[in-house]
Amino acid sequence: MELLREHESISSVLLVGGTHGNELTGIHLVQHWKKQKIENKFNHFRLDYLIANLSAIDANKRYIDHDLNRCFKLLDLEDHSLKSNEQLRAKQINNKFGPKGNSKVDFIIDLHTSTTNMQTNIVLTRIDAFHLQLAAYLKQRLPNVVITSESELMEDHHFLESIAGKGVLIEVGPIPQGSVEYPCFETTEKTVLTCLEFIEMSKQHTIDDLPDELEIMSYHSKIYFPTDEIGNITASVHPDLVGKAYPQLVRGDRLFKSFDGGDVFYQGDDTYCAFINEAAYYDQKIAMCLCRSKKYSLSSCKVIDFK
Amino acid sequence: MELLREHESISSVLLVGGTHGNELTGIHLVQHWKKQKIENKFNHFRLDYLIANLSAIDANKRYIDHDLNRCFKLLDLEDHSLKSNEQLRAKQINNKFGPKGNSKVDFIIDLHTSTTNMQTNIVLTRIDAFHLQLAAYLKQRLPNVVITSESELMEDHHFLESIAGKGVLIEVGPIPQGSVEYPCFETTEKTVLTCLEFIEMSKQHTIDDLPDELEIMSYHSKIYFPTDEIGNITASVHPDLVGKAYPQLVRGDRLFKSFDGGDVFYQGDDTYCAFINEAAYYDQKIAMCLCRSKKYSLSSCKVIDFK
Repeated sequence: MELLREHESISSVLLVGGTHGNELTGIHLVQHWKKQKIENKFNHFRLDYLIANLSAIDANKRYIDHDLNRCFKLLDLEDHSLKSNEQLRAKQINNKFGPKGNSKVDFIIDLHTSTTNMQTNIVLTRIDAFHLQLAAYLKQRLPNVVITSESELMEDHHFLESIAGKGVLIEVGPIPQGSVEYPCFETTEKTVLTCLEFIEMSKQHTIDDLPDELEIMSYHSKIYFPTDEIGNITASVHPDLVGKAYPQLVRGDRLFKSFDGGDVFYQGDDTYCAFINEAAYYDQKIAMCLCRSKKYSLSSCKVIDFK
Repeated sequence: MELLREHESISSVLLVGGTHGNELTGIHLVQHWKKQKIENKFNHFRLDYLIANLSAIDANKRYIDHDLNRCFKLLDLEDHSLKSNEQLRAKQINNKFGPKGNSKVDFIIDLHTSTTNMQTNIVLTRIDAFHLQLAAYLKQRLPNVVITSESELMEDHHFLESIAGKGVLIEVGPIPQGSVEYPCFETTEKTVLTCLEFIEMSKQHTIDDLPDELEIMSYHSKIYFPTDEIGNITASVHPDLVGKAYPQLVRGDRLFKSFDGGDVFYQGDDTYCAFINEAAYYDQKIAMCLCRSKKYSLSSCKVIDFK
């Protein structure tokens, strides 16, 4: 596969932990790398670190006022009336490492975890030759990598990593919020190292052949918990689904188990699902996210098949 | 086994959820029971409900200022200088359902969850004939019940359930904070029903024979995470231990896995451990709690063997 000249423009990388204050893996990984001066191992780019949401980390919460990883739309960054804890923090981060559209850092890796079986979820907010090749490289080298895309959900993305020209969000699960487990730490670390290896190798024009086809799970909608008249949830996600990694959901499948023991069945079109019973999404009463499996061609950057 | 006359004094029971704001199972169970008017099913006692820490539930946190389930020492309840969110809430709860030592409710069931494999953990703060028989009854009727004791840790206990003359804490895990899973909900509900069945049957003098011996895990100390000079943890609990239910820990066992991949070995006396990598205990940097297995005689209420 032809190497992208575009890669050569990556001269600085930012590794981010703690965008969500109760996802400890990324925080400890960044602290560990900082202490060990791991940045000195890389010759072809500068590596900086960021612990993104210190006040949320102190509070051991995902966020204080707003989800920081939803605060990076250009419109919001430029809106000086937005002054919550995270809206201000987003502006600070954008000033230091951005500004979005003309950023000082070329590539951002933002580290997350999930309470659900997302495996090693590589989240793309951009589908282009560079990001498709990066994703294909990660999938080729590491076990249990699943590529998901948020690129179709919005034009001006709200993720922190969107302030750089290129970036990726790495999300490993399942792991409870507020805790660290070594396998999750190790998987996250290996994935970061493989991203950096891709960047370094591509600059040296030594990337091995990649397959032309790449499967990407692309989000299209959500399912919310059933609630009573005052908004309390009245059912749990069905045990058939909890703990599964990206299962197919077919009309008639058991979807929820009500607290009285009754089953609630799925009525929609066939789909895949992810973030099944994600603890972080209870604030919005989201029970799961729905996605389609799309096959992309790396050479054309187009969808060549989907289900 | 002889029935206890003491049982006859139980005429009111309080079922508590949400003592910790991010342990959702008990909250949803209490809301569900309230709505279904489950209290009408019981003829021999009055059943009331309490959602204990509403502000922590709103914040989706274990607590706002202090752990509510550590605020019920008599000394603290009587100290009017203690005015944090939870210290005030403890006084309110004590006024309504206590006062401790002369309480309006006779029996309290407090519902909790753990992020660790505690199975169906029945926590006793009192070792006497009544509580031993209740615990033995639960262990006889339900799968995966483990009885643990906090009775030796303090004279004047700080748990919410200590404001009544009798009580029990039910803690089911593993489940992440901030989420509900049906098997955990169902196990919790069955355990509550079995507690109430014990109370109801004992008042009718119809309790079946119980074995005379009961194993109780009794806490004696804790192990803390290794930290660096500024207090950041530098290792995770070793994967050998994470996810295990009350494993034995022997000198030389692998205890921690440092973030650089190195193993740290256990140096203490042989013991059992629990709450292994409990997310709720990271605020105190507790990596696990240590306990001994004690065999109690129900007839003498004495320890007859331990290891």
